[in-house]
Amino acid sequence: MTTDTIPKECAVEFTLQGKTVRLGGMTKGSGMIHPNMATMLCCITTDCAITKEMLQKALSADVKKTFNMISVDRDTSTNDTYILMANGLAGNPVIDREGEDFDTFCEALSEVSTCLAKLMAGDGEGAHKLLEVVLSGAESHEQAVTISKSVITSNLVKTAMAGNDANWGRILCAMGYSGAQFDPEQVDLVISSAAGELALVKNGIATDFSEELATNILSQKEVRVDIDIHMGTESATAWGCDLTHEYIDINADYRS
Amino acid sequence: MTTDTIPKECAVEFTLQGKTVRLGGMTKGSGMIHPNMATMLCCITTDCAITKEMLQKALSADVKKTFNMISVDRDTSTNDTYILMANGLAGNPVIDREGEDFDTFCEALSEVSTCLAKLMAGDGEGAHKLLEVVLSGAESHEQAVTISKSVITSNLVKTAMAGNDANWGRILCAMGYSGAQFDPEQVDLVISSAAGELALVKNGIATDFSEELATNILSQKEVRVDIDIHMGTESATAWGCDLTHEYIDINADYRS
Repeated sequence: MTTDTIPKECAVEFTLQGKTVRLGGMTKGSGMIHPNMATMLCCITTDCAITKEMLQKALSADVKKTFNMISVDRDTSTNDTYILMANGLAGNPVIDREGEDFDTFCEALSEVSTCLAKLMAGDGEGAHKLLEVVLSGAESHEQAVTISKSVITSNLVKTAMAGNDANWGRILCAMGYSGAQFDPEQVDLVISSAAGELALVKNGIATDFSEELATNILSQKEVRVDIDIHMGTESATAWGCDLTHEYIDINADYRS
Repeated sequence: MTTDTIPKECAVEFTLQGKTVRLGGMTKGSGMIHPNMATMLCCITTDCAITKEMLQKALSADVKKTFNMISVDRDTSTNDTYILMANGLAGNPVIDREGEDFDTFCEALSEVSTCLAKLMAGDGEGAHKLLEVVLSGAESHEQAVTISKSVITSNLVKTAMAGNDANWGRILCAMGYSGAQFDPEQVDLVISSAAGELALVKNGIATDFSEELATNILSQKEVRVDIDIHMGTESATAWGCDLTHEYIDINADYRS
């Protein structure tokens, strides 16, 4: 049985030394998703000519910023799989070292894997929307990862999202208990979606925002939260989803 | 607004050097409960004669095994409070050092605070039952704490509990992703409640258990899971609750 509701596929074409190279992938998984490259299944293929070592290097770097940055339920599976295969048929000079070609390949890989990771988070069990949290102004990448993941995995943030509730307090609370150090009085927080953009918090204090506009923004299928902690120049992006009645239906009620 | 559904009170009497000493407490809180002595409110009073230093020592040791071992939603609050007050009216010789009297006091405190901690976990927002996880056979207390807390905070374990589903796989999965090291082939797992006791896993392999009996056991208001990892003699107990539709109602739907 699968609880996936949509096919998750993505592909790009790019050019290497005049040769057109193709890279495409598919993933499956919607519950027990908090990958630590452990029910997630991802297969990406390319016709790029690239050595096994450079392929592994690209995959290892990529996964940290894509699949390991999504969470549906904070339950890491025992068997996540990310397979990356290349057959070399594009005819480009074999990539066997770092450099411009490798960077181009990694960019294409990142485009496909980020697309697939977002498809998974947005199709989380019972989810009605994709939540993207961009944490910027961090002192280190680790700090940015810790805070952004703490926000997307919070059940209270996820239920607030399900209710289209601009509950910035739950977001700041999840940032605080993440263990990362930051000054709450330096925090700026902006929500955005296809319905517009709205600053909820400026220097740690709630703005006099329109609840109606906030609700409209949060009612969209993709919601982004930008948080700036004004400590440095590092950033990280994490993806999650709302926590709804349907998640309970899928995981508690399926035997009744 | 509070989402507590019951008053949470507990008291004991004990004897110190021939004097009757009383110790009682109250707590409130049902959401944003994953205390790290930060919405939880707990006040315990006693007429025991005891110095401020020894009172703090008793509290600091106690909280690690009681309130810091419960979780409703894994969302640590910004303002948990645990107050312990003593007025000395019992007339016992003032406790000002470690020893038999201090141990007696700590036992009484543990009885009351454990009772209050369980009342909070069982009255978690939307909860239908209290889940107690006892992890034994650990190499260290930290290992036992890490594994037991990983199990009680798993959304998939909590929804399985809501569905009265003997889903031992989700429990072993949460143990595995806790980060603690153990041999899955050495794990024994037993569930119990007022409806009986049942071994689900022996040496890492599912027993041929009765699904009907398992469902009956899990349908009770208090469910216990005993897990033995056969590595040592340390143990820890953590308390949580099931994750239900009512949790979503309380935290997502209250504005609609």
